[in-house]
Amino acid sequence: MANQTTDYDPRTFKGRTFHDARSAFADGKDTPIAYLERCLDVVAEREPVVQAFASLNEETARAAAEASTQRWKDGNPLSAIDGMPVGIKDLLETKDMPTQMGCEAFKDNFPKNDNAAVWALRQAGAVIFGKTVTAELGGNHPGPTTNPFDPSRTAGGSSSGSAAAVGSGMMPAAIGTQVGGSIIRPAAYCGNFALKPSQGGIHRGERQATSMSTHGPHAASIEDMWQVAIEIARRTGGDPGAPGLMGPATTPHPMRPERLIVLETEGWVKLDPATISAFEQLMDGLQSAGVTLLRRGDHPWIESLEQSITNGTEVCGTITAWENRWFQRNLIDRNPDGVSARIHATLAKAEAMTPDDYNALLLAREDIRTRHKTLAPLADAAITLACPGPASLWPGDIPGQPLAPNPTGDAVFNYPSSMIGAPVVTVPMMAVDGLPVGLQIMGQRNEDARMTAMARWIHENIDPVVL
Amino acid sequence: MANQTTDYDPRTFKGRTFHDARSAFADGKDTPIAYLERCLDVVAEREPVVQAFASLNEETARAAAEASTQRWKDGNPLSAIDGMPVGIKDLLETKDMPTQMGCEAFKDNFPKNDNAAVWALRQAGAVIFGKTVTAELGGNHPGPTTNPFDPSRTAGGSSSGSAAAVGSGMMPAAIGTQVGGSIIRPAAYCGNFALKPSQGGIHRGERQATSMSTHGPHAASIEDMWQVAIEIARRTGGDPGAPGLMGPATTPHPMRPERLIVLETEGWVKLDPATISAFEQLMDGLQSAGVTLLRRGDHPWIESLEQSITNGTEVCGTITAWENRWFQRNLIDRNPDGVSARIHATLAKAEAMTPDDYNALLLAREDIRTRHKTLAPLADAAITLACPGPASLWPGDIPGQPLAPNPTGDAVFNYPSSMIGAPVVTVPMMAVDGLPVGLQIMGQRNEDARMTAMARWIHENIDPVVL
Repeated sequence: MANQTTDYDPRTFKGRTFHDARSAFADGKDTPIAYLERCLDVVAEREPVVQAFASLNEETARAAAEASTQRWKDGNPLSAIDGMPVGIKDLLETKDMPTQMGCEAFKDNFPKNDNAAVWALRQAGAVIFGKTVTAELGGNHPGPTTNPFDPSRTAGGSSSGSAAAVGSGMMPAAIGTQVGGSIIRPAAYCGNFALKPSQGGIHRGERQATSMSTHGPHAASIEDMWQVAIEIARRTGGDPGAPGLMGPATTPHPMRPERLIVLETEGWVKLDPATISAFEQLMDGLQSAGVTLLRRGDHPWIESLEQSITNGTEVCGTITAWENRWFQRNLIDRNPDGVSARIHATLAKAEAMTPDDYNALLLAREDIRTRHKTLAPLADAAITLACPGPASLWPGDIPGQPLAPNPTGDAVFNYPSSMIGAPVVTVPMMAVDGLPVGLQIMGQRNEDARMTAMARWIHENIDPVVL
Repeated sequence: MANQTTDYDPRTFKGRTFHDARSAFADGKDTPIAYLERCLDVVAEREPVVQAFASLNEETARAAAEASTQRWKDGNPLSAIDGMPVGIKDLLETKDMPTQMGCEAFKDNFPKNDNAAVWALRQAGAVIFGKTVTAELGGNHPGPTTNPFDPSRTAGGSSSGSAAAVGSGMMPAAIGTQVGGSIIRPAAYCGNFALKPSQGGIHRGERQATSMSTHGPHAASIEDMWQVAIEIARRTGGDPGAPGLMGPATTPHPMRPERLIVLETEGWVKLDPATISAFEQLMDGLQSAGVTLLRRGDHPWIESLEQSITNGTEVCGTITAWENRWFQRNLIDRNPDGVSARIHATLAKAEAMTPDDYNALLLAREDIRTRHKTLAPLADAAITLACPGPASLWPGDIPGQPLAPNPTGDAVFNYPSSMIGAPVVTVPMMAVDGLPVGLQIMGQRNEDARMTAMARWIHENIDPVVL
């Protein structure tokens, strides 16, 4: 039953939340170990089809939940997320589970380190209870994860397992990472909230190798999303050289945006009529609530940004291909059969480039950043779809046929924020054909808390749309 | 003989150069394999005392030199450094030698990858023939390397082996890395030229974890120094997100500076009279040649920069301690006896910090950068000593006594350029008590080629000083 197709309805859907469970821990009516067991029950029920996990360590998770239970009993929880079960994308190192990165060449890789964010979560008392499936090396070659609302569809990628684990109620929050669209898009496909922080906002630990990657939480509630992010940042700060995510110690209050820019991005032309219609109904709802919407025709600066992001797929993808070049070359030299044909193709593209080709792309990216910064006085934020419609079908590659271009869905709406380094929050506000479609709200750099506050206002004040 | 103390005299000292050997390769009078054998002869003679190497791979080096010999014979060298023997600091991964980082915990560590810069050197035909000793993890706990001019003294650190291998004539160039003072200072102690590039100028490959580290070449000539740097950068570009080192394909022509700022830094008060005297004689030489010198009393902006860099040791050291925090915590959790007491002390310092403490230091660093940028119109570059006098004695730690604070010498003159991210060239221009003392010239960011041109002019036009 639970593993068959289920119609998603954002008006009634309730994922697994943690922020509202805490009071029961404090008065002893519930405990973190009982909470964990409920999560594990869902894992037992749904994992055979959803396949969100690359590794599970129930033993250390139970020990951590028992310790948390005791702290709540003693009245000394370490933080507001003490006892929260959290999944970790399998790109990040964890000392008690392997880090296999969805890649055959890293099978059984087990460095026994904690990524800085994982370390922070443990310091805050969180229960690290599984490594979630990532598309291979954070790219787009998919792992086994399926969409929690329809197993014939992708959960998105590359944070496939984090998105699906939260969307299926296995856990209240999970850490994803994004270079192109790997937090925002899978969250949008799985009905989650998610924060892709400003570039550098959350310390990436050992994963500093690319210029556009970020760590960010998926969660079934905006409260848990923010709490996870801020508890990490308060303990590790940002990346080396960056000040890191700042903001209130608990979820920001709802903040009503006065003016919002509606961005089309290069994705608009790829939309199906139902998704356009759902999005426009949502825009109508915002306007009815008194929010002023500005579009590309309304101001030349908006048009200027739109024009600069029409080749985001190419700019973002090629920058990242170059930045992964030496890592992938070493990997393939050691183990040519240990990576997919998709990685071979990406490396071939990168190895045809020169530093000047890369620098030309950096200049294009800088231009986009400048145009986006210019928009700051025009509006409070930009909004658009977080994905180009509901999750796409994924029947698998067909032997002898060319590789499918976007097996984990198209990140076309996600490249702008990645290129800009801007904070984005995904808000689950729409359903199309019984599947989740997310809205995203994007701010200027380091406006992470404000975007969270505005996302919260939209979620609490605007009617979701079901088509 | 060769391993006893030898008086260094910059007027007569001639290290091992490569740029002037190439013509003999082209006409067949010399070959890269013969050149390599001459290097290996010096290694055999001097290595027992100098101890520059953590690993040597004569077999793969000879194979690379044979291949290069054939290319020169065929008239098809890959680059101007085809056949150049180059040492690699043992912090950088090399696929044919272990990467042990001067750290017991990494004994026999052998990841079989090539760092991006090593990859570029091989693409250019260079002969990678050894891993050079680094102070532990690039810090200041010394390895066994001794100063090539006096084995009772340090070769500097953390690029100890790279500096000593070049200074002793074992090789024409070697790659070092700097976070605080690890390229500039050992070069200055060993009579080398060296380039610490602008932050991000040379791709660091897998070593992206700290915000102030750079890769840069040590060499016995400014021609080889530049050639190595530009051949790497032309193949790998800069760090992710950075445009990378640019400049002419061969060593920049000498460029006469019109005005130079003489910086005291926090190091001035630590100088002995002989070193001050040598430096001032050099300054007299510059003035006699018509170069205008500006000092802190000559302009309030210079005084402003001087005041901001008086605690560089603390700012630079503490930023780096924080940035190494999670790496070191994981390492010590796995293997507490695998690192020195110096690393334990650094980690303890970092673990007493909060993200806000770190952010306060980033702000101090940003302030220094702003003050330095302000100076651009005042002068062509800044100059100062590259080290606070000749290499210090290093008898080893004394059991039961507190750890010596600067066993590889004091980096006090090197922190400003590290904090600013500015390019610096070390120029061997002085001898004090028979030991090398380097001059450094520092520019604005990305003026690497211009600093090389001015360093070359100074070296070719100003008399060195021997005291």
